[in-house]
Amino acid sequence: MADTQAGGGDELTILKLGGSVITDKDNPETVDDTALDSVVAAIADSGVTGSEAGVAVDDTAGSTGGDAAGLIVVHGGGSFGHVHAAEHGVSTTEGSHDPVAVTAIHGAMKQLNSVVVDRLQATGVPAVPIHPLSAVARDANAGLSLPTAAIDGLRAEGFVPVLHGDVIAHSGAGVTVLSGDELVTGLAERLDASRVGLCSTVPGVLDGNDNVIETITEFESVAAALGDSESTDVSGGMAGKVRELLDLGAPAHIFGPEAVADFLAGDDVGTLIDGT
Amino acid sequence: MADTQAGGGDELTILKLGGSVITDKDNPETVDDTALDSVVAAIADSGVTGSEAGVAVDDTAGSTGGDAAGLIVVHGGGSFGHVHAAEHGVSTTEGSHDPVAVTAIHGAMKQLNSVVVDRLQATGVPAVPIHPLSAVARDANAGLSLPTAAIDGLRAEGFVPVLHGDVIAHSGAGVTVLSGDELVTGLAERLDASRVGLCSTVPGVLDGNDNVIETITEFESVAAALGDSESTDVSGGMAGKVRELLDLGAPAHIFGPEAVADFLAGDDVGTLIDGT
Repeated sequence: MADTQAGGGDELTILKLGGSVITDKDNPETVDDTALDSVVAAIADSGVTGSEAGVAVDDTAGSTGGDAAGLIVVHGGGSFGHVHAAEHGVSTTEGSHDPVAVTAIHGAMKQLNSVVVDRLQATGVPAVPIHPLSAVARDANAGLSLPTAAIDGLRAEGFVPVLHGDVIAHSGAGVTVLSGDELVTGLAERLDASRVGLCSTVPGVLDGNDNVIETITEFESVAAALGDSESTDVSGGMAGKVRELLDLGAPAHIFGPEAVADFLAGDDVGTLIDGT
Repeated sequence: MADTQAGGGDELTILKLGGSVITDKDNPETVDDTALDSVVAAIADSGVTGSEAGVAVDDTAGSTGGDAAGLIVVHGGGSFGHVHAAEHGVSTTEGSHDPVAVTAIHGAMKQLNSVVVDRLQATGVPAVPIHPLSAVARDANAGLSLPTAAIDGLRAEGFVPVLHGDVIAHSGAGVTVLSGDELVTGLAERLDASRVGLCSTVPGVLDGNDNVIETITEFESVAAALGDSESTDVSGGMAGKVRELLDLGAPAHIFGPEAVADFLAGDDVGTLIDGT
């Protein structure tokens, strides 16, 4: 089953950590330490980052890490970004020209990102922060300009870029929210990712009886169970997520926090979404 | 004289605030509040940002700011970035693969950037942060990949991007320092800036008698006064600065903090460097 083993050669795995997984949704700007430490440990133990020595990488040898950095981490906003986005009336479609709204939402996300990066570094993962507002923009038709020079450059040097949902410039609308999920699909397409994993609070996509659906290869078969794909969630609900992942061009998995290690080991976990 | 009036039409002015100007070089990670407030007030009063209402920009009218955002601000590291860069042995040419070095230098610069952005916002300038590590990379021949999608998008929506010297991915070297000056010239070239201003601690480029040289149109005429262009400063000395600005394709001024207002008003202040 695990023929797309992560971490081999120059294969790229993109792992999304849901905001609800790593933060305490009931308390503004609060990290769920236990949950974050658990997924961070799974990432550190996986070897997918190719640099278990992490911070001890030998500079003098002129090693560049090269194809070893097989992982990009993206995380959502949870109780950091969403609170401020809601407060300022900013969503993926509703924009703002208020610079104070920009720095409130963006600043909260950088704060969470800093925690995630620091925890990863502490376990030996050569994590470095990437903030989408600094690089990404949306045109009037909602198409993304997502230049990857910095991500490519950092990966080539052996670092693991850690990105996050953010606000970004949106033509005609000021700034709008770029969700972690949209970022994951945008990166996967541009960087030709081999595998995409979305770590959620649920163990997979659930059917009408709350059982995990093992495989989804087209939307219609699960439409009834998932309901309307037009979600009111600032970052899109499960139906929208499934639709996007079916269009991805790479196999994607949706799974719970307990399955991060197995996913990074190359196993099929949770729900496999494969529209290819 | 002021035929290149800043702020008109879609003309772009890039203003660099030297790290030594806005920080207290004698105390690590300390802002020079008086100096920063003074240059921030000059920027706010200039009208170059085209949005004196600033945070009160009317969203409902669907105004995008458009060509009004005629300013980009870049600042140096001063007592924030340089201390950490030196501590980790990172310069524009000496790199590091240590992720802890990356976040130490980058984190200090983001901290300073946050102060600059907040002060500008407080005076009504629609300032938003841009962090070069997230977008820019250097190839093995030290050439810059400097995508401007986010900067373009934010400017088009009426925001004033505020960038800073930073560490960036450098092929074969891990990360190296991108100086504020190099960022200014890179941006000026790519964005076809009309005017570039470098606010320094000195009132201009000084000759052998410490008098400000009014105009420099080629390097040889001032080489003797400026000395070796190979500086040991992490971000390059005055000679290197003059050489780069002569190659810029736009008129550049080097001046002291007291001249920011006049520069933004379109006046020739300090030393005019024009190799065009």
